Amino acid sequence: MVIPLLIQHKRDGHALRPEDWRTLIGEYTAGRVPDYQMAALLMAVVWRGLTTDELAALTDAMIASGDRLSFDGSTLRVADKHSTGGVGDKVSLLLAPMVASCGVAVPMMSGRGLGHTGGTLDKLEAIPGFRTNLSIREAKAQIERIGCALIGQTPEIAPADKRLYALRDVTGTVESIPLISASIMSKKLAEGLTGLVLDVKTGSGAFLPEPARAIELARTMIALGEARGCPTVALLTAMDRPLGRACGNALEVEEAIEGLRDGGPPDLMEVTYALGVEMLLLVGAAADPKDARERLQAAVTSGRALETFGRIIEAQGGNPAVIDDPAVLPQAGAVEVYRAQRSGVVATVEPRRIGQAIVELGGGRRSLEDQIDAAVGFVITVKPGDEVREGEPIASIFARDSDGIVSGTAALDEAIGVRERGHLTPLISHRITSTGVESLAEAR
Amino acid sequence: MVIPLLIQHKRDGHALRPEDWRTLIGEYTAGRVPDYQMAALLMAVVWRGLTTDELAALTDAMIASGDRLSFDGSTLRVADKHSTGGVGDKVSLLLAPMVASCGVAVPMMSGRGLGHTGGTLDKLEAIPGFRTNLSIREAKAQIERIGCALIGQTPEIAPADKRLYALRDVTGTVESIPLISASIMSKKLAEGLTGLVLDVKTGSGAFLPEPARAIELARTMIALGEARGCPTVALLTAMDRPLGRACGNALEVEEAIEGLRDGGPPDLMEVTYALGVEMLLLVGAAADPKDARERLQAAVTSGRALETFGRIIEAQGGNPAVIDDPAVLPQAGAVEVYRAQRSGVVATVEPRRIGQAIVELGGGRRSLEDQIDAAVGFVITVKPGDEVREGEPIASIFARDSDGIVSGTAALDEAIGVRERGHLTPLISHRITSTGVESLAEAR
Repeated sequence: MVIPLLIQHKRDGHALRPEDWRTLIGEYTAGRVPDYQMAALLMAVVWRGLTTDELAALTDAMIASGDRLSFDGSTLRVADKHSTGGVGDKVSLLLAPMVASCGVAVPMMSGRGLGHTGGTLDKLEAIPGFRTNLSIREAKAQIERIGCALIGQTPEIAPADKRLYALRDVTGTVESIPLISASIMSKKLAEGLTGLVLDVKTGSGAFLPEPARAIELARTMIALGEARGCPTVALLTAMDRPLGRACGNALEVEEAIEGLRDGGPPDLMEVTYALGVEMLLLVGAAADPKDARERLQAAVTSGRALETFGRIIEAQGGNPAVIDDPAVLPQAGAVEVYRAQRSGVVATVEPRRIGQAIVELGGGRRSLEDQIDAAVGFVITVKPGDEVREGEPIASIFARDSDGIVSGTAALDEAIGVRERGHLTPLISHRITSTGVESLAEAR
Repeated sequence: MVIPLLIQHKRDGHALRPEDWRTLIGEYTAGRVPDYQMAALLMAVVWRGLTTDELAALTDAMIASGDRLSFDGSTLRVADKHSTGGVGDKVSLLLAPMVASCGVAVPMMSGRGLGHTGGTLDKLEAIPGFRTNLSIREAKAQIERIGCALIGQTPEIAPADKRLYALRDVTGTVESIPLISASIMSKKLAEGLTGLVLDVKTGSGAFLPEPARAIELARTMIALGEARGCPTVALLTAMDRPLGRACGNALEVEEAIEGLRDGGPPDLMEVTYALGVEMLLLVGAAADPKDARERLQAAVTSGRALETFGRIIEAQGGNPAVIDDPAVLPQAGAVEVYRAQRSGVVATVEPRRIGQAIVELGGGRRSLEDQIDAAVGFVITVKPGDEVREGEPIASIFARDSDGIVSGTAALDEAIGVRERGHLTPLISHRITSTGVESLAEAR
């Protein structure tokens, strides 16, 4: 295999053979293809895309670069959810224990926040003592015992993806639908899943703001999953405003626990239930959508989901007292109410600006080495379309000190726009399966 | 400067600022930008191209990465020629001493052969003892003494180009008109030239076979040269057949010496004179094209050009006896006449196939570390359009042994096509200046 010729071939718009992708990824993971050749090839892929066969071969090679979680020989039904990331998205924290309480195993492997989007691992680590770096063996044992583990990408799973992702991050080759799809699906398909639901965000705060691109990403990932024996469904959900009210790691844990007590914000609960319904249906744990929803609701109202969350926290070294006492979480040094600057209708609650403000407050990362302050963030109680009156409290700012309050206030001034008019876009706009794209917005 | 953001910017089709290119190239040369980021950026440039301002900034930064030959303060007129490379192209060996004999300094910096094209340095090194690795100081002293030096790219000249070229070679990013232009012109413009002529090859054996692309390359390089105070002209010359008769390092030296004795093949002499005329005119060493041609011819017929070549050889450690005795050159172990396989008209003499055959015979490189056998090659006495009769001698094969004769014969069977019809394309098809493209083919 002459690597420069393969790069030229891709550069000139031709497809590489599946065996070329296998060899490339194998040799790259083994350290025998240098980063500079892989970087040039990745840029050629951003330019030229990948055929279905190429994408399949790349994804398979990335899976094959490491170990898998395997539930072979057990009768477990195994489901997971992946979100393309947003602001205020604490769905995983509710959904995993809810679905696990319905008898479905959930090996939920999540990431860290980077840039303006938050990450589930950072939220979990706001709970004192919580450990996310379980080995495959530990995760598997915990899933078999409690039904769920909330973990980071272990070193054993898809190591090729880890190396490729780190390289893409520093070479301007992140924004490619096939590369994103291969990265996500190689990790998820290594989890030994019976079914997978994708929460693909759209709108100004999403990684791919345009619905058409978000749908293309969803369809690409669904085709990959289905072709590998993992039934996959996607929901397109709104990320032109934060999900729920809390934005910031500890604040989001608190809101997730409220949700598990059946007291969460309606939009957060709606997205969580909708994704949970898909998970139960995909693995045959419910007869139909109505049955699935009732099972999930019963898990919440009975207290089983919250109890499961407590057991997960305890199993992973966290302080389970957080379930009953949010004061266990890190507390902000300064808190201030934010009030509407004028009367009118809320037109924007810009998630990207809010996510950036959390980074500015110390609650997010500029680089992967940054330490974060879990206590800071915002609780925003209005959504686009809400009427507000001048001086009415519409948010709270949680910061380290009074300087943080000043910068947080300035950020909300920019993020929250009150105008003559404003309206709320549909929360869940499309349901995408291997057979097509169903618009849900018109039906509402 | 955040490199991934610059890469993304270029990837998305935007221009980088001149200061970004300056910093990028400076930091890359200093080893502070890793190869993988540069490789991704280079692929983005292959994809998106460069604006005039970007190309100028990149070229200037590459020049600034090293030292320059400087003739400031002297009254020397300094001219050089660059060829985009071909088979049988020994023009530099004649042209440099001819132009130097007309009182113009020629700091001719050349490259090695790679792939199917030959390199002037390899040809010169066929002369026993000839040393091409002069320092800038040595080259300058020799030019001031003899009027000419025939050297390789010194480590001091455009070191950024050396690193970038090595990286492009292994990352599939060679084929880009702006990157090729910046690479060539950064070296030439570091030579302190008063004028530069470009021999841009077209046809099946050329690096860019299509005339339109060759013209684009010529215009890009001319604009770069002119904007940097170096008047630049290009001739488009045919490389759908070898130039002259001899192909192979020692054989080409012998043919060049024949040319300096006024006995070279007509096509070789025509291209050499045409390029020489441009060089003399560019630096004001002749009144008009007729005057320039007469001066060059006088340099040949008087023996001054040959004498200058002898002085250059001697100054650079080579055996000047080669001037009078070709037997000083390495001799092939086996020589065989090649005869026309049928009667008809020569339709093709494929330079690419002949260049590959020289590599197969051991006379060219597969990688830059390869040692080469200077003695092997071909002398082909027919051109497309020539009538031949079955059994008529039309070439000679020079090889190490009888195996080489067999493979050389097979190569000529493929390269030389005799058919019902065949014709010779114009040798010099276009003259390109900063003001436009003049077609010379119609005038013939």
